[in-house]
Amino acid sequence: MIGVFDSGVGGLTVVKEIFNLLPEQQIIYFGDTAHLPYGTKGESFVKKSSEKITKWLLDKGVDVIVVACNTSSAWASDFLKEKFPKVPIFEMITPAVEDITALGKKKIGIIGTPGTIESQAYNKKLLTLNPSLKIFPVSCPLFVPLVEEGWLEGKVTERIAERYLKSLKNKKIESLILACTHYPLLEGTIRKVMGEKVNIINPAKSLANQLNLFLENNPKFSSKIKKGENHKFYFSEKPYNYEKISRLCFKEKIKHTLIKPLL
Amino acid sequence: MIGVFDSGVGGLTVVKEIFNLLPEQQIIYFGDTAHLPYGTKGESFVKKSSEKITKWLLDKGVDVIVVACNTSSAWASDFLKEKFPKVPIFEMITPAVEDITALGKKKIGIIGTPGTIESQAYNKKLLTLNPSLKIFPVSCPLFVPLVEEGWLEGKVTERIAERYLKSLKNKKIESLILACTHYPLLEGTIRKVMGEKVNIINPAKSLANQLNLFLENNPKFSSKIKKGENHKFYFSEKPYNYEKISRLCFKEKIKHTLIKPLL
Repeated sequence: MIGVFDSGVGGLTVVKEIFNLLPEQQIIYFGDTAHLPYGTKGESFVKKSSEKITKWLLDKGVDVIVVACNTSSAWASDFLKEKFPKVPIFEMITPAVEDITALGKKKIGIIGTPGTIESQAYNKKLLTLNPSLKIFPVSCPLFVPLVEEGWLEGKVTERIAERYLKSLKNKKIESLILACTHYPLLEGTIRKVMGEKVNIINPAKSLANQLNLFLENNPKFSSKIKKGENHKFYFSEKPYNYEKISRLCFKEKIKHTLIKPLL
Repeated sequence: MIGVFDSGVGGLTVVKEIFNLLPEQQIIYFGDTAHLPYGTKGESFVKKSSEKITKWLLDKGVDVIVVACNTSSAWASDFLKEKFPKVPIFEMITPAVEDITALGKKKIGIIGTPGTIESQAYNKKLLTLNPSLKIFPVSCPLFVPLVEEGWLEGKVTERIAERYLKSLKNKKIESLILACTHYPLLEGTIRKVMGEKVNIINPAKSLANQLNLFLENNPKFSSKIKKGENHKFYFSEKPYNYEKISRLCFKEKIKHTLIKPLL
């Protein structure tokens, strides 16, 4: 079983990519909606919450943990690996950074929430792997509320995207990291604004690839969903827009149960 | 001393109106940024937090409490009045509702965050005073992030406002309540979209009027700011956009000290 957690519903785009590659694995999702957003909380708060949720998921019997939240990935994933040394823990940043350096591009744009951009989590890891990279980070605070409204396309969304992405277009970036779990739902609009040449990296896809590879090589951590069982989605507080985001991600094809509230 | 609290920086627009009418009163502000937004939290959480903050403000020596948060006003103000029967407690909803019913208008629009709109706090109080009112509530989730970006005017903001306010224009509402503390900063754009005839009610102004009247009639609760003293603004976590919102509200004319983090 794969345990996935996020501060809210954004991690559903990560589950979407895991479903695509590993449709037979059972997922247990935990969204800490009572404490979202994590980006404005302190590091010690995010560490404590991430540890509590990881313990809870392990008690539910998961074999693998996916930290589907950029803030937790930046601040808590090393801490979690120390606390739970026997548990395979995947996070958002490393797989994307490895993918992007493998591509050999030099000018990299990063877009995310103000919290993720300020944390410089992606920048630091990118520069560790390749100090000659040129990195241009831009925070796009309106993108999450746009996704949560379901305004994924259209003139208003395009104008907002144009305004945020203008400096990256001017810098002629080659690759663009979507460093927020909500942003892949805006990929169509972002592609339209940035043009066909820019290589758009969705960290959820990079993570799902690494997870897929890991489970192929370590089948003892793999456990397929039983007939009649559903994927389970828990939240610490009623998620305001679960149905909308869930429909955008899963198109209602995947059987899943929403269980609320918890912890 | 007047103790003002909110879940974040939105309450600064309430402080602005208090400053306008009562420039000599000292303000202590508390923004519970560690737990924002309140709108998605449960009622018991909001009650507990509001009680804790009220106690803390009273320990600092405040004479009057202003609940400058619509969610706390809806869920916790009656509870606070019971817990602290000797303390004058002002909240966002009652003064605005009294102002609007005094105007004798029949078709009332209410705009706010999804949390405030779902709570129906304004609707219920309006209908108690006048059951024949026609009330049209609309939630505008993008307005808060627009304000926090400082995008108060311009085409993007207007187009978003047009989209949210279209149904209210079609209904030919006579009055519009800005039921979120951030929205008064968008009043120019909202006015442009709604036209000159609609009567726009800013609950912060209604509250400041009632507070002004109360202090005139109850001078023992009034305490003027001492020479050399500043207004004080405390937050439970570093507020992401304090400087921007503060500049929009106070235009840097008012001396104030930011003290972070607390509680």
